[in-house]
Amino acid sequence: MPGFQPRDANYRTRVTESFEQQPFARFVGSELRRVEAGMVDIALPFMPELAQQDGYVHGGVITSIADAAAGFAALTLVAAGAGVLTAELKVNFLRPAGTGLLLAEGRVVKPGRTLTIVQVDVTEQNSDGVKHVLTGIVTVMAVDSQ
Amino acid sequence: MPGFQPRDANYRTRVTESFEQQPFARFVGSELRRVEAGMVDIALPFMPELAQQDGYVHGGVITSIADAAAGFAALTLVAAGAGVLTAELKVNFLRPAGTGLLLAEGRVVKPGRTLTIVQVDVTEQNSDGVKHVLTGIVTVMAVDSQ
Amino acid sequence: MPGFQPRDANYRTRVTESFEQQPFARFVGSELRRVEAGMVDIALPFMPELAQQDGYVHGGVITSIADAAAGFAALTLVAAGAGVLTAELKVNFLRPAGTGLLLAEGRVVKPGRTLTIVQVDVTEQNSDGVKHVLTGIVTVMAVDSQ
Amino acid sequence: MPGFQPRDANYRTRVTESFEQQPFARFVGSELRRVEAGMVDIALPFMPELAQQDGYVHGGVITSIADAAAGFAALTLVAAGAGVLTAELKVNFLRPAGTGLLLAEGRVVKPGRTLTIVQVDVTEQNSDGVKHVLTGIVTVMAVDSQ
Repeated sequence: MPGFQPRDANYRTRVTESFEQQPFARFVGSELRRVEAGMVDIALPFMPELAQQDGYVHGGVITSIADAAAGFAALTLVAAGAGVLTAELKVNFLRPAGTGLLLAEGRVVKPGRTLTIVQVDVTEQNSDGVKHVLTGIVTVMAVDSQ
Repeated sequence: MPGFQPRDANYRTRVTESFEQQPFARFVGSELRRVEAGMVDIALPFMPELAQQDGYVHGGVITSIADAAAGFAALTLVAAGAGVLTAELKVNFLRPAGTGLLLAEGRVVKPGRTLTIVQVDVTEQNSDGVKHVLTGIVTVMAVDSQ
Repeated sequence: MPGFQPRDANYRTRVTESFEQQPFARFVGSELRRVEAGMVDIALPFMPELAQQDGYVHGGVITSIADAAAGFAALTLVAAGAGVLTAELKVNFLRPAGTGLLLAEGRVVKPGRTLTIVQVDVTEQNSDGVKHVLTGIVTVMAVDSQ
Repeated sequence: MPGFQPRDANYRTRVTESFEQQPFARFVGSELRRVEAGMVDIALPFMPELAQQDGYVHGGVITSIADAAAGFAALTLVAAGAGVLTAELKVNFLRPAGTGLLLAEGRVVKPGRTLTIVQVDVTEQNSDGVKHVLTGIVTVMAVDSQ
């Protein structure tokens, strides 16, 4: 993992404010946990409303925090005033996620003026330990303003 | 699109009951609209809680109904007593989705004993017409029971 | 499938010349079969060199013609003087491909100034009929010159 | 990266023999470089026949060795007598690949009785150093015999 030079020294504030203004992030109860240049972690405590019919967390929810961690990781590296959009995402579900704490870790693999490629992994932490529940790649596009 | 022969004549009831038992589907307000052999449509009316900071629907929400439409489309074709899990999904976001009605259409491309491949498309319908907001492919795995 | 308006009236010549200058296309024996605005077909006759250890065509070869059909389909819609690069691709292998003729059909789903999204499907045609061997989505980026 | 316990102690021989029997691997000139439990490296020296019209290596070729490294990495972990098929793959092209040596590294993320998920990365090595040209995820399915 190389060190990235953010183009906007104020990136932490920008990511934090953007996250806090997002209704869906609040709706599902996700929390911003870490913001570094090229890396963002988002946590999600379990709520019964997030489950599928089998009691496991809905794959769409897990994908949502993965997408968010990836998009915000890309946002740490774009110029001040620029925004980001997810162009596409692809994820594998490795194991079902139960009632533990989910942690989505977005890590920029390749920044770019137009496209930023981000690897994302989600783990579930509970009293039994940590398990890997999702791995994915997200392509994020920088846009002039959002 | 070939016609598929469901292995379980009771597939409509099974899909409907499974959908109705899903907490997350209710939480976001999604509705089951169509269930045929190899095809399922799910609708999602806009709610402010589903938005990103820019007012558009969160990509993770759109992906959630895409995943659901794909998974249930696969479920129409598996044997009675079998369940399904999404093994992986990959989607492109084509246009931002605003305050219209979202419709996710899952269409089985290739059924299989173990893996079923499903194409999924999401459109937004509002007073201006219909626009294509997501296209994707989902790999669904049949499991013995769920 | 909507009708697309090519920005370069000369797109057929441009695609054809580009294809003919591609060493790898010749190396595997692929043939340009159809060039319309937003759609390109590429055929590939079987050669024993293209096989895996099990006698079926190598998935990488099938992906190669899928990628090519998608990239050239996007190229039909970009401005004169612009080139294209595949940003990412994702494919499902539906059935093994034997000794028949492969046909890759790239169809633009959403053109754009920066990114063009293309659906691609590969079929195998032999004396038994036509079978669907690959479905995929390719994200193509326009670049200033190539 | 956890250590994986191969189910077939003879996995190195099996992977090597399978690789050597593959016509396409020879055709493009790829070489098996490393075989461990859950990890396989494949190298590809440059040949002009592998290029696109712009002189860079064709994305389909890079994807081919990525697919091969992933498939063989999965093969190291399946039971004796079982084979593998790529169910789906998804890759991002990070930078164009020139005339250097390509190295594809397949690393199993999650083994399974039916599906094995493999991360794959391709780098190009030349006199200027090493650059990352592809990152991807491959879903490999175990099959009873091949």
